[in-house]
Amino acid sequence: MVWTAAQLAAQLNAELHGNDAVQLHRVDGLERADAHTLTFIRDAEYGRRWAQSNAGAALVSRAAYKSAKLTPGEGRALIVVDDADAAMAQLLEQLAPPIHAPMGLDAAAQIDPTAKLAPDVRVGACAVIGPGSVVGPGTVVHAGVVIGARVRIGNACVLHARVVIEDRCVLGDRVELHAGVVIGADGFGLRPAPDGHGVVKVRHIGHVELGDDVEIGTNSCVDRGKFGATRIGAGTKIDNLVQIAHNVQIGRSCVICGCSGIGGSTTVADGVTIGGHVGIADNLTIGEGARLGAKSGVMHDVPAGETWLGYPAQPAKLTMRMFASLRRLARGDMSRDT
Amino acid sequence: MVWTAAQLAAQLNAELHGNDAVQLHRVDGLERADAHTLTFIRDAEYGRRWAQSNAGAALVSRAAYKSAKLTPGEGRALIVVDDADAAMAQLLEQLAPPIHAPMGLDAAAQIDPTAKLAPDVRVGACAVIGPGSVVGPGTVVHAGVVIGARVRIGNACVLHARVVIEDRCVLGDRVELHAGVVIGADGFGLRPAPDGHGVVKVRHIGHVELGDDVEIGTNSCVDRGKFGATRIGAGTKIDNLVQIAHNVQIGRSCVICGCSGIGGSTTVADGVTIGGHVGIADNLTIGEGARLGAKSGVMHDVPAGETWLGYPAQPAKLTMRMFASLRRLARGDMSRDT
Amino acid sequence: MVWTAAQLAAQLNAELHGNDAVQLHRVDGLERADAHTLTFIRDAEYGRRWAQSNAGAALVSRAAYKSAKLTPGEGRALIVVDDADAAMAQLLEQLAPPIHAPMGLDAAAQIDPTAKLAPDVRVGACAVIGPGSVVGPGTVVHAGVVIGARVRIGNACVLHARVVIEDRCVLGDRVELHAGVVIGADGFGLRPAPDGHGVVKVRHIGHVELGDDVEIGTNSCVDRGKFGATRIGAGTKIDNLVQIAHNVQIGRSCVICGCSGIGGSTTVADGVTIGGHVGIADNLTIGEGARLGAKSGVMHDVPAGETWLGYPAQPAKLTMRMFASLRRLARGDMSRDT
Repeated sequence: MVWTAAQLAAQLNAELHGNDAVQLHRVDGLERADAHTLTFIRDAEYGRRWAQSNAGAALVSRAAYKSAKLTPGEGRALIVVDDADAAMAQLLEQLAPPIHAPMGLDAAAQIDPTAKLAPDVRVGACAVIGPGSVVGPGTVVHAGVVIGARVRIGNACVLHARVVIEDRCVLGDRVELHAGVVIGADGFGLRPAPDGHGVVKVRHIGHVELGDDVEIGTNSCVDRGKFGATRIGAGTKIDNLVQIAHNVQIGRSCVICGCSGIGGSTTVADGVTIGGHVGIADNLTIGEGARLGAKSGVMHDVPAGETWLGYPAQPAKLTMRMFASLRRLARGDMSRDT
Repeated sequence: MVWTAAQLAAQLNAELHGNDAVQLHRVDGLERADAHTLTFIRDAEYGRRWAQSNAGAALVSRAAYKSAKLTPGEGRALIVVDDADAAMAQLLEQLAPPIHAPMGLDAAAQIDPTAKLAPDVRVGACAVIGPGSVVGPGTVVHAGVVIGARVRIGNACVLHARVVIEDRCVLGDRVELHAGVVIGADGFGLRPAPDGHGVVKVRHIGHVELGDDVEIGTNSCVDRGKFGATRIGAGTKIDNLVQIAHNVQIGRSCVICGCSGIGGSTTVADGVTIGGHVGIADNLTIGEGARLGAKSGVMHDVPAGETWLGYPAQPAKLTMRMFASLRRLARGDMSRDT
Repeated sequence: MVWTAAQLAAQLNAELHGNDAVQLHRVDGLERADAHTLTFIRDAEYGRRWAQSNAGAALVSRAAYKSAKLTPGEGRALIVVDDADAAMAQLLEQLAPPIHAPMGLDAAAQIDPTAKLAPDVRVGACAVIGPGSVVGPGTVVHAGVVIGARVRIGNACVLHARVVIEDRCVLGDRVELHAGVVIGADGFGLRPAPDGHGVVKVRHIGHVELGDDVEIGTNSCVDRGKFGATRIGAGTKIDNLVQIAHNVQIGRSCVICGCSGIGGSTTVADGVTIGGHVGIADNLTIGEGARLGAKSGVMHDVPAGETWLGYPAQPAKLTMRMFASLRRLARGDMSRDT
């Protein structure tokens, strides 16, 4: 990558102040920037660090540019946009190097003769595709992926290295699964053993359905339904190391952060945001647009639109109030003790 | 699958009410059922939804049938059993489609010539079995599994795609490991560096022993002992994304839910139930039949038979009492403030 | 392994009491030891169990030997050292059997012709190395590993089975990654969709840099930077199932226990210790030498050298005080109620 500040400003339809000829070879944060680095200034706090930074140029939000009264400085440039985050996202899209991917069908891939792949599907080395599975146009199956039997995968999906998709699961279009994701393993369904000693496994004959534009992070897992489907709605994004149990129903456009787990048969409606390390018990309903704070332990249904937090999770205001009361109590006890 | 209600009732030795000829092609929940779907009614609450459901037939627990005064309705059937959950589990066993598995030894598997496999062992594409390892009759090794050296695997085990079993680990019979499980990686044992800067790794020369009928969920891991074994007793079931540290000793018939972690050298006796996202510190003892509530952080030994909950974990009654006291305190503070 | 107590004592430069000819074939804990087992006695509490143990010999810390007034007993030996833990670590180093590893380049490995491997690099079956990647001398790439394009891997690294390293990531020397680790997947960066419905993914063009002597446990993941690098400093050790988000900067010689997660762009300075199941929010700074107790939920910067604990995390003394106050409050409420 070699861009001039002028080229970037033109591309973003942005105002340019300072040296329009500065050459930019990379993108990095303010602290690590050198004279050929483009950085970005989201708000006035970042803005105050601009003068000390060595960056060649910065994308800067108009509000920060004004409130911090920024000047480009010697030989440097400021590219002023409405929203530096959005402009950076747009640039990253253009700057992104191609991800290494197989060309066509690798000779070391193992594709069952009864699988049906669109002509432009690419499959990496040591990937395995089982009988009766169908893969749509434009989909990339990276090295080491294992796809079972009678799986249906839509168009333009990306299955990164070592993803596993078990029998009969269904993926929409533009689904992206990061390395190590497992879709469709048996749910954790147990019942008392007939002989009265311990538990035995309940067979799971259901499957998993992932909607269009679903993205799931590394080593996360979505179990198949006991019967019927575990479902994740279109546009929902799931982070790394997340566990979705059997028969969970997740709506559209949800965001689920890393290390969270959702118990069996729980329903999560559209547009729900779930922080990191959140646990949700079995058989609950999380209403549309609800927000669950990081590390919450959810043991009750959460009404639509509410923000809950805590262990056990409650409306966030009540939890914050409880933290404050407890702090006040402890301070009182401390002053009494001393 | 095509069954009539009469066939299912006969098979389950159950009472049949309504249309014994209704044809059933699938199994699903009450809300998603159509005229050819078999559903189930566990209790009176489910029972109240029967009239509005489109299901062709339902397995219903006798108690729910009576208390909700259910009637089959036009063209539909109710199959009354003692326990709808147990009857459904029995049916699922019979309805389960075969899981796609390799036939014999895949030509793209890499099996060391010194490994000893029973004649009917099946090994998938790109699976790797190391020198001196032994695999018992009836065991299925799915695609992409990696087995190290001198591993011993019993009869009728199922190692799903991409499982890793490191050197010298031992599996009993009928062990099922879901995709991505790792057995026998080094424990997280560190000690101060001899030069006083940071820490260095302690070598782990032990191994892992999994008893008969152990099942472990996707991407969970069990570390090898520092010396001696990390052990998981017969019949214990472990969910997805669970971490079992070096030298942990888990008894028989335990149930460990998803996202939990057990610290090094901790002992978990027989019949313990551990909820999701539970953390247990190093070197503790959890007594026989104890129950640990979801998201507990366990920092002390737990006596046999007790139910503990909370962060830090304590007897559940005390924790529930503390939550109630805190809520009362916060309400009092709030009314004082306003 | 067959050693006599005398040989071990000589090797450790230790005092020997009792039967110097006792033959030792294995190492295990006091409870599981037989007449040919070497065990160890860290402190006086372990010491009290020596008389009942069947162990042939024990490494014992001098302080424990004296305070518990230990005697070897009939036919057994005590090997007295300054620190039994350190002596055991030294012995384990010597006793460790070699880990099974590929010899040279396995014929079933898929190595791009433009990758540059030092002559002694070993690569296992079904491992895949992409174009332009470089692997240093002495490095072992186990079976099923997938390495993308233009990855740089230093000397004497060990990549265990099924590790994935995505494009352009950089590993120092002596890095050890356990089975299933994923380095360099996209971060979880989202922004509101331009059409106002839900969220869309932000492209991540950065990479990951792992310093010398970094070790990462099974199925953990380190995401690539949005731009610039996610960095883990030299000598830092990370346990199993840990999530490190995009652009996190971790210093040297940190210790991060299992099931923890660190949010995007957070900085963790040198020598920080993080317990199990800890969650740290985005954009925070954890100061040098800080300690975070297990299961903490960290929502604020933590000053250097401090020990924090709790949910929300606070200085540990305050959190302990709050637990005590809450317990006292609950007892008071209980006595009022009855």
